[in-house]
Amino acid sequence: GFRPIGLFNYFSCFLIQNLEEWVAVESDSVQTDLRKEVIRMMALAADRLRALGAAVNSVNLGSHQLPDGQNLPLPPVILAELGKDPQNPTLCFYGHVDVQPAKKDDGWKTDPYTLTEINGNLYGRGATDNKGPVLAWINAVETFRAMPVNFKFVIEGMEEAGSLGLEKLLEEEKQCFFADVDYIVISDNLWLSNRKPALTYGTRGNACFFVEVESGDKDLHSGTFGGIIHEPMTDLIALLDSLVDSTGHIRIPGIYDSVAALTEEERKLYESIEFDLEEHKNNSGVKKFLYDTKEEILLHLWRYPSLSIHGIEGAFHEPGIKTVIPAKVIGKFSIRQVPHMDLSVVKRQVVEYLEDVFSKRNSPNKLKVSMPLGAEPWVADINDPLYIAARRAAKTVFREDPDFIRDGSTIPIARMFQTIMQKSVIMLPIGAADDGEHSQNEKISRYNYIEGTKVFAAFFLEISKLHGQLQETSNTKTDN
Amino acid sequence: GFRPIGLFNYFSCFLIQNLEEWVAVESDSVQTDLRKEVIRMMALAADRLRALGAAVNSVNLGSHQLPDGQNLPLPPVILAELGKDPQNPTLCFYGHVDVQPAKKDDGWKTDPYTLTEINGNLYGRGATDNKGPVLAWINAVETFRAMPVNFKFVIEGMEEAGSLGLEKLLEEEKQCFFADVDYIVISDNLWLSNRKPALTYGTRGNACFFVEVESGDKDLHSGTFGGIIHEPMTDLIALLDSLVDSTGHIRIPGIYDSVAALTEEERKLYESIEFDLEEHKNNSGVKKFLYDTKEEILLHLWRYPSLSIHGIEGAFHEPGIKTVIPAKVIGKFSIRQVPHMDLSVVKRQVVEYLEDVFSKRNSPNKLKVSMPLGAEPWVADINDPLYIAARRAAKTVFREDPDFIRDGSTIPIARMFQTIMQKSVIMLPIGAADDGEHSQNEKISRYNYIEGTKVFAAFFLEISKLHGQLQETSNTKTDN
Repeated sequence: GFRPIGLFNYFSCFLIQNLEEWVAVESDSVQTDLRKEVIRMMALAADRLRALGAAVNSVNLGSHQLPDGQNLPLPPVILAELGKDPQNPTLCFYGHVDVQPAKKDDGWKTDPYTLTEINGNLYGRGATDNKGPVLAWINAVETFRAMPVNFKFVIEGMEEAGSLGLEKLLEEEKQCFFADVDYIVISDNLWLSNRKPALTYGTRGNACFFVEVESGDKDLHSGTFGGIIHEPMTDLIALLDSLVDSTGHIRIPGIYDSVAALTEEERKLYESIEFDLEEHKNNSGVKKFLYDTKEEILLHLWRYPSLSIHGIEGAFHEPGIKTVIPAKVIGKFSIRQVPHMDLSVVKRQVVEYLEDVFSKRNSPNKLKVSMPLGAEPWVADINDPLYIAARRAAKTVFREDPDFIRDGSTIPIARMFQTIMQKSVIMLPIGAADDGEHSQNEKISRYNYIEGTKVFAAFFLEISKLHGQLQETSNTKTDN
Repeated sequence: GFRPIGLFNYFSCFLIQNLEEWVAVESDSVQTDLRKEVIRMMALAADRLRALGAAVNSVNLGSHQLPDGQNLPLPPVILAELGKDPQNPTLCFYGHVDVQPAKKDDGWKTDPYTLTEINGNLYGRGATDNKGPVLAWINAVETFRAMPVNFKFVIEGMEEAGSLGLEKLLEEEKQCFFADVDYIVISDNLWLSNRKPALTYGTRGNACFFVEVESGDKDLHSGTFGGIIHEPMTDLIALLDSLVDSTGHIRIPGIYDSVAALTEEERKLYESIEFDLEEHKNNSGVKKFLYDTKEEILLHLWRYPSLSIHGIEGAFHEPGIKTVIPAKVIGKFSIRQVPHMDLSVVKRQVVEYLEDVFSKRNSPNKLKVSMPLGAEPWVADINDPLYIAARRAAKTVFREDPDFIRDGSTIPIARMFQTIMQKSVIMLPIGAADDGEHSQNEKISRYNYIEGTKVFAAFFLEISKLHGQLQETSNTKTDN
């Protein structure tokens, strides 16, 4: 049933009021006419951090140019800090307060910008992605500020629009704002199940390829030229067909060479993971997966590469019939990469293989293979203090060990922090699998929101303890 | 240089004035807002035939419905006749007076609806397709009306928009208007060269196929599902790749079984054909053809089947990157058919082959193969009196034997007349290869237009002589 917000107890009432205020701001970074709302949201977040007692710096990133030539101001990135005791570990939290577009008409059962509780779920755009987790973290810091931990915050407003300017800022501030950061925490994803907590320690990378085959500068009629020319489309189809077989195995020589071997420790992790295979299959709409067991499915989603063919540009794509021989066609495919595949090696393997397949066709057409976009995979060491602390925190709050999970998609932010800062990164989600980020009826449950805040607080305690032990060990070693 | 129309001699002056008047009518049947101009053009054509002394019947075909639901009147089809002497052969001429769209802005150097002579060429929309040849025929009839030949005319105004209603009318009038027709002449195509006359005795058919592979009802994200599902696009690419090899050979078992064997007589025809291979290659924009000699090129364009893959519906086709796994993709390809391939056999062969290839992939996806459109090939007997007469006529006018050519494209009209009337059909072009039908700067040369008129006249004489001899032979036989 419907439950009016704010009647529970003081703590959760305050938390939910916070979220209600933030969700009410239409800080949609995708639709450019709402940019001023994003900027207003950044100001609210800065105020909230100042109220916490943090030193807040809203860094102006200037403006960016839209495809129509118009210049639009970028929202600032907030760099804030609270506590500077050199004895304490410094935890840096990353989050974002911009959201995906949402309109009641898209199929929302409630107004997307009015946080509404139904059956224990708090519905609203940004509830789980990412305003809820950001507020949970801030509220955990506020409530447990006596903890022996220094806090830093990186809050941005352009995550849903490609995090424009963020990477450059991280590079610039690496030796300044970020100099004393020990650990980085990101809470911008979801558990794998609806009820069991999870820690995320890896994401796949993605290498996108264009394969262009060109015969000349004009499309031809299949009546007038069919049967006497090497059709670019036939060449392209053969090239695309050479990439992957019907079992999903990638046929590019050497592509699996650098894939990290599966360790026994890792294999064990998969056994205990809570994952509803049937539900995932139902969500996909497909009748049958390539593998039968939970373990095999997760292994192939998270720690093995995959190749998908997305489409062809330049060929006939409309309904109906057009007996054209297209002159220039561009196949698009991508390879989800895993550790320790190297982007430049993958690119070389793909180009060499396709050029070899093409050369065997004796086609006079022109082949061009390019990689317009490449993102590296990310994986963390699950024995790092960050993961030990997060695991203990989750167990304290939820009374069970969290799942150690990865994500088959490419989330560049963790990799970006790890590469630039050279510090450990954890993705510590508090939302459940069915939260519907980016969808209609996005929500976070009251339970996850409140318990998530507690997990963060417990995490502060655990990381400070572990850090203290590490310092001691290190001091002892120095003493000897 | 520019030459004002109408100063040559009386005969050609009259002919060209006729063409100038007809080209001035924007009888574009494709753009529906110009339908009234098509109808006005039909009235002009009917008037011209009446002036000839013909009995003219403008048959009302009613209206047709546009995709937006609007009803638009169809232009009438003109059925006209001149002469009814049972001793004489009856020649039925088919032509059309509607045109393709044309605008000065499309790249015309002259106004497309003002016939303009430059360097001996008469530029204007419809000059060669098909107003010029229709007028040449009418003028030949007028000038040589004393010839012992009965004439029938079928003139339509919807050829460029699919000849709506024509086939039904031919069927209906088969035992009436067409009952005493002996020969059918169509002059709605072009020579193969710019200077040597040609007779066309065959066109390829076309069987269009859709191959649909579907995994479910929603597109998926390649990060979340890449590596664990049978992607419909991978299945479709493999199916399309199984159709044709890099030499252009169709890999569907049995597909060549019914292709007519090449006779020695036929092979000889190809040797003398005037065809500029280099120019055809330049027109195509491709660097190299699949075959090196003129003979091989023409054989593969005209009398062997070919398979072209046109594109894919449902996949990502725009510029840029989208890491989607499309749920339902439809590959489009077509097979240009030749005698004696049978459409229903071809369909069965394609469906069985693709189902077999698909079954070997063990994919849980749904496959659907269909043939939404099929047109039969057409070929005539070049020893038929029609061809003998046309050859003699061309030789009389141009002082050389015409080439016997085919067309690699599908022109359903010849096949339609042959199938319905069960009489011989000839395609007797008078325009040159570079006339640019359907293109900007369409033209017919003054030379081709005037000499074409003479060819038609000489043809009347030859066919009446041949017909007389045939009657005599037949009477002699009956007497014995």
